Amino acid sequence: MSESEAEHHQKPIRFGILGCARISHKFCRAISLLPSGTATISSISSRSLDKARQFAASARLHSSVKLLSPYDALLEDTSVDAVYVPLPTCQHATWAIAAAAKGKHVLIEKPAALCVEELERILEACEKNRVVFMDGAMWLHHPRTTEMRRLIDDPSRIGRLRLIHTSSSFLATPEFLQNDIRVKPDLDSLGALGDLGWYCIGCILWATNYNLPKTVVASPSLSLNQSGVILSCGASLYWDDGLVATLNCSFLSHISTDLSIHGSQGTLLVRDLVIPYREDGASFEVISGAHFAELHIGWTKKPEEVAVKAPVPQEALMVLEFAKEVKLVRDKKSDPSLKWADISRKTQLVLDAVKKSIDKKFEPINL
Amino acid sequence: MSESEAEHHQKPIRFGILGCARISHKFCRAISLLPSGTATISSISSRSLDKARQFAASARLHSSVKLLSPYDALLEDTSVDAVYVPLPTCQHATWAIAAAAKGKHVLIEKPAALCVEELERILEACEKNRVVFMDGAMWLHHPRTTEMRRLIDDPSRIGRLRLIHTSSSFLATPEFLQNDIRVKPDLDSLGALGDLGWYCIGCILWATNYNLPKTVVASPSLSLNQSGVILSCGASLYWDDGLVATLNCSFLSHISTDLSIHGSQGTLLVRDLVIPYREDGASFEVISGAHFAELHIGWTKKPEEVAVKAPVPQEALMVLEFAKEVKLVRDKKSDPSLKWADISRKTQLVLDAVKKSIDKKFEPINL
Repeated sequence: MSESEAEHHQKPIRFGILGCARISHKFCRAISLLPSGTATISSISSRSLDKARQFAASARLHSSVKLLSPYDALLEDTSVDAVYVPLPTCQHATWAIAAAAKGKHVLIEKPAALCVEELERILEACEKNRVVFMDGAMWLHHPRTTEMRRLIDDPSRIGRLRLIHTSSSFLATPEFLQNDIRVKPDLDSLGALGDLGWYCIGCILWATNYNLPKTVVASPSLSLNQSGVILSCGASLYWDDGLVATLNCSFLSHISTDLSIHGSQGTLLVRDLVIPYREDGASFEVISGAHFAELHIGWTKKPEEVAVKAPVPQEALMVLEFAKEVKLVRDKKSDPSLKWADISRKTQLVLDAVKKSIDKKFEPINL
Repeated sequence: MSESEAEHHQKPIRFGILGCARISHKFCRAISLLPSGTATISSISSRSLDKARQFAASARLHSSVKLLSPYDALLEDTSVDAVYVPLPTCQHATWAIAAAAKGKHVLIEKPAALCVEELERILEACEKNRVVFMDGAMWLHHPRTTEMRRLIDDPSRIGRLRLIHTSSSFLATPEFLQNDIRVKPDLDSLGALGDLGWYCIGCILWATNYNLPKTVVASPSLSLNQSGVILSCGASLYWDDGLVATLNCSFLSHISTDLSIHGSQGTLLVRDLVIPYREDGASFEVISGAHFAELHIGWTKKPEEVAVKAPVPQEALMVLEFAKEVKLVRDKKSDPSLKWADISRKTQLVLDAVKKSIDKKFEPINL
């Protein structure tokens, strides 16, 4: 690498933030935790300049960060390489497609879209404009996830997958259930299925190495609010080889982000999958090749806890991965990788099937 | 209590064992671990005297233990207060009813019967002959179970039940899949549903304080052997208040005996429910009132591990409880308690519904 190339390669990815959502604070903090040269906040935009100003102050952004309104202004800003889109899901397609058309790479909060057709339009725009697409599922970037992947792929540790179970929930406050974007039919009509089911479906597909199920059936145990937005739902997914996965996502149950993977040779369990208990590392439990002891008075072994350190929080690792992909395109003129787009597409496809099964009174949906 | 009453009260319950199954060794060991005066082995019977002799030798039974054949001989033995029945399920009704008719109390291995009608006949015989009935679900007698019950019943710890998930499995050897009683259509036709599903259904019902579900649906992911015996199956149970429970039982998956209970206020998790890892105690995890920390960069608390000591193994505690009930009837002339019979009946009722749903190609079955 020549000196000028190395220097260019160190030029950080300049983010524009489309919307001052609460999660944008977490995003700004993530960037601040990365080595300089990775990414910077270049501009933020809001529906009102006042709101952008308030956000910049409370997030303690550098005075060089441009404050823009409305969102279009940010897309016109040539100093922006990539946009972070934490807008309500109903606005994802509009702004992601507009950003791609302006050559901006797209990092979008989950759920990626309201349905797979909408997501396809986003992904087509990204492909056409040669920009990177990634959704905001942060847990995929944790080193614990890499370590779990390694064990799942080792035939002696988990073996043939038999049963996957996951739940994602939190107990929403009365205020949340009244006012939050995620319970409004015109903003995030997928409710808990979009907000939490994205994780459940995502981790099930991840466990199978993105092998789509044959059939998806929603559970008749369903809670909707008065506007028909999902507050709690479940589903079962079936594969031809006998693998079954069950998921539950709910705004009405104590916080959980469990994943248990049962294979022929072992079992893996993680309880804080989506957001680890602590930022500096995370663990999971695994047990392989155990039996009941003689006379069935115990087990031959107990699960072991595998702890994995995180050099920076998973959201920072997500930005790092995204910035790496964007730099390859921006600085190396590579074709954008489709890896993350494919993951989002498959997640949305299964999410759509759950929604369709709900709408069809819990009929099985074949994929 | 007069001196003679106290003395009589200390007279141990004299067990006759109907069948020299492998689990009978565990049963004999359990009795040996209890304080003298609780229970003794009075007689054992087998289809052949030779087999009974071999069993007595390998279990190192006292020479005073009578060896009898066939089973009828044991029922004629007036020194026997109670029978332990570890026979193949297809023989449960015949011998349990015959034992009750001879005034013997009945401790029977699970599954209690092949169907609820058969179990009803057993229970009627027990009630008519004023003898105690209990099935061999040992985990119900562990002090950990009592501690979990206390937390579930405390509204601030788990709260309203939302989701229960349980799996019970082991990876059967090729020999087991070829020869074991539990895969033979004429011996234990319920296969994994009877052997392992009994635990799954039992712990779900236990968690709900034996509140029966409204609807039961078997999962289309089903493995049968060539004779139609269940090797692996699953089901979902639904209650009117929105509670859903999912279960999976399998001879084709690594050992597991998980139970997770998700409520509005907390989550409880136990991984070695049916047989604890160690005999001297067991633990479970519980977390209540947790939230994501500010900015969603962690949790406000982690699950705590609750450890509970066991003075003797759970199978010994089961015998202790059974002996206590039998002594009340034998020595105090009390009416036999129906507590354990009711638990078995409800478990069998739901097990029947799962089987019926399987037979009806996974149709929902209303209870």
